[in-house]
Amino acid sequence: MNMLELIEKKRDGGVISKEEIEFFVRGVTDRSIPDYQISAFLMAVLWRGMNDEETADLTISMAKSGKICDLSDIPGVKVDKHSTGGVGDKVTPILLPIVSSFGVPCVKLSGRGLGFTGGTIDKFESIEGFCTSVEPSDFKNKIERFGLLLGGQTSDLAPCDKYLYALRDVTGTVPSIPLIASSIMSKKIAGGSDAIVLDITCGSGAFMKDIESARELARRMIAIGKLAGKPVTCVMSSMQQPLGIMVGNILEMQEAVSVLQGRGREDVKNVVLTMASEMLKLTPFGKGKEIDELKKLCNEKLENGEAFAKFGDLVLSQGGVLQSDGTPVYVDKSFEVMTVYAEKDGYISSCDALSVGEASCLLGAGRMEKEDVIDMGAGIRLYKKIGDKVSRGEELFTLYTGTKAPVSDDRIDEALFHMQDAYVISDSPVTAPKEILEVIS
Amino acid sequence: MNMLELIEKKRDGGVISKEEIEFFVRGVTDRSIPDYQISAFLMAVLWRGMNDEETADLTISMAKSGKICDLSDIPGVKVDKHSTGGVGDKVTPILLPIVSSFGVPCVKLSGRGLGFTGGTIDKFESIEGFCTSVEPSDFKNKIERFGLLLGGQTSDLAPCDKYLYALRDVTGTVPSIPLIASSIMSKKIAGGSDAIVLDITCGSGAFMKDIESARELARRMIAIGKLAGKPVTCVMSSMQQPLGIMVGNILEMQEAVSVLQGRGREDVKNVVLTMASEMLKLTPFGKGKEIDELKKLCNEKLENGEAFAKFGDLVLSQGGVLQSDGTPVYVDKSFEVMTVYAEKDGYISSCDALSVGEASCLLGAGRMEKEDVIDMGAGIRLYKKIGDKVSRGEELFTLYTGTKAPVSDDRIDEALFHMQDAYVISDSPVTAPKEILEVIS
Repeated sequence: MNMLELIEKKRDGGVISKEEIEFFVRGVTDRSIPDYQISAFLMAVLWRGMNDEETADLTISMAKSGKICDLSDIPGVKVDKHSTGGVGDKVTPILLPIVSSFGVPCVKLSGRGLGFTGGTIDKFESIEGFCTSVEPSDFKNKIERFGLLLGGQTSDLAPCDKYLYALRDVTGTVPSIPLIASSIMSKKIAGGSDAIVLDITCGSGAFMKDIESARELARRMIAIGKLAGKPVTCVMSSMQQPLGIMVGNILEMQEAVSVLQGRGREDVKNVVLTMASEMLKLTPFGKGKEIDELKKLCNEKLENGEAFAKFGDLVLSQGGVLQSDGTPVYVDKSFEVMTVYAEKDGYISSCDALSVGEASCLLGAGRMEKEDVIDMGAGIRLYKKIGDKVSRGEELFTLYTGTKAPVSDDRIDEALFHMQDAYVISDSPVTAPKEILEVIS
Repeated sequence: MNMLELIEKKRDGGVISKEEIEFFVRGVTDRSIPDYQISAFLMAVLWRGMNDEETADLTISMAKSGKICDLSDIPGVKVDKHSTGGVGDKVTPILLPIVSSFGVPCVKLSGRGLGFTGGTIDKFESIEGFCTSVEPSDFKNKIERFGLLLGGQTSDLAPCDKYLYALRDVTGTVPSIPLIASSIMSKKIAGGSDAIVLDITCGSGAFMKDIESARELARRMIAIGKLAGKPVTCVMSSMQQPLGIMVGNILEMQEAVSVLQGRGREDVKNVVLTMASEMLKLTPFGKGKEIDELKKLCNEKLENGEAFAKFGDLVLSQGGVLQSDGTPVYVDKSFEVMTVYAEKDGYISSCDALSVGEASCLLGAGRMEKEDVIDMGAGIRLYKKIGDKVSRGEELFTLYTGTKAPVSDDRIDEALFHMQDAYVISDSPVTAPKEILEVIS
């Protein structure tokens, strides 16, 4: 078996066997296949695609390229959750405490953000003292004591995927559905959970720009789950505008806390409650119950303070600092740079997620390059969202920076430019978009 | 401008601008673009193709990546010749002396062989003392004195192509018509000639397996020539069986010499005379003359010994040694390993060029790897070709080795196996295939 033959086979539209995929994954992981052959192969895969079996073989082989977390000695069905990324996505910090408050063990391994989409690890690190380096050997102990845990992906989790992802990023081979699906699912499988609920964001601020490709990605991941023996549910949510009204690490955590305190906006709550219910549905507790009933039960956890209390447990158990009212102490503050007002009356017809995400990134809330330092306080507050009525002179948005990574005036101007691009005010009424587009499993 | 954007543009089916192609060629040549990006781009080009303008821009930019030979101080129209490679292709050593004997200056820059197709430089180096390292500064002097010259491609001739070719070879990106066309034409343009005649071989023993792809390659190269201001004629010749009856370096040179002495087989002569006439047709001498008339004139040069005399000049002018009868002294001899006889009566219906080429390569006549030493005496003699009547017990072929690179018995067995595969004897008569399939310009 040699790599050139594999490239030629895929280039000519052939199907790669399990043995060949294992050869490829081994060669990527131990660096015996040169990068130029890997990237030619990836482009051929992007061109010719992979069938479900090839995709599942690639996924499982990548999962096995490093350590597979063994959570079997933690009793109960462990359900993992993953989002394909979005702008203002603060679902995880709300969702985990809700699900955990039903007694369901929650182990969530997350990544850092790159580009305009944020990373969950970064958001939690905006809390003073919060530590995301948890050794897998510590998982059982932490879960038994607190019921939930949030960890960073260690480098020995699917190392082949890590290497491939970095190469795809610089060779134009990211937008391949089988490659995206296998990348996500390999980490989920290596993470050791029993079932997986995926939030597939869809729209300008997401990887998947339209519902058709989101559906195709969902179909692929469900097929991989089937072949790997792990039930997968896919929630397709809209990312044509940011989720909620806060974008940036501290700002998003603050919005999450207000949802946990029962004071959240309906759009954020809707996505959180849908995801939480779909996760519960895959556990013995939720089996046989209707989704609407589960949503109601989940909402109660927000209203009765149980979810907020669980959130407090999570923060404290990982070294984070809370104030006396149970809200976190943050590593920095958000300072207003400017607030922009509506120049005319009308209805918001666009609040483009990609533009808002890029503006937030420019202000320092995200990384343009892997090595960039995040300014935790930086970000954007939105006062109006699609469908909202607006009067001339009303607040539209506020730009914030923190103190940890000062940005130049030029970058602030650029961010402002993106934000002005994001908002469109129309004369006639606009219907607010649905947050949840489809759920398939 | 950055390479990732270029990859994405081609991946999405876009057209690369002249400036972008120049950026790419510069980056390949000065090594500032990493190999993994180059190979992803090449695969995207193989997938999406390139239009005539992109292909011409790439060609001209690659030609300019190194020195362009300036032949302008050599008077007359300089016509270059190139073959896309074949098995038993001894056209150049016969063709150059013919064309040169009409007073047309012939500067031919050739490459070495890799894989089952031989290289002209290797064939000439089978002559004792023959030296192919000629400095471009020496061209004029040699042409004025002898009228013709055969040189190896120096490393500063289209270095970008050299680098790309090596990378294509290991990344499955060879069979792309725009990449093949630009590779050939960039070297021809850098070679400095005024007009070009291309022999596009077509069949199992050639790059182009069928007439459609050969035609498409021809069309591309003519289009590039048009945009570069150099007339191009493409002769499409059959490579379903080897050309002539000798395969291997010394053996082919011996067959070439017998053609030059007026004793050649019709198939070899037909290809040589067609190519020579098409070359003359692009010079003031041949302008306005019919091809048949030119072929007749060329054949006279074979019969009256003028071409053979010119061949002698060529050999002597580049340090080669001749015997008293004007034939070359070779660096080695060919030793018969075995002769195989027909096992039944019938007609030869296949003498597969690829299998013969591979067998010859296994015997030591070609390089499997770039570093391999060629055994100049090794090769194969064919006694029968497609269409020939054969009786049981008649000679079919002889395998030869030389003394310079001994091969194992296993390899000889493998070569024999390939040869037995190459020949098919049918019960009913078979028509001999045409050598020349089409000529377009």
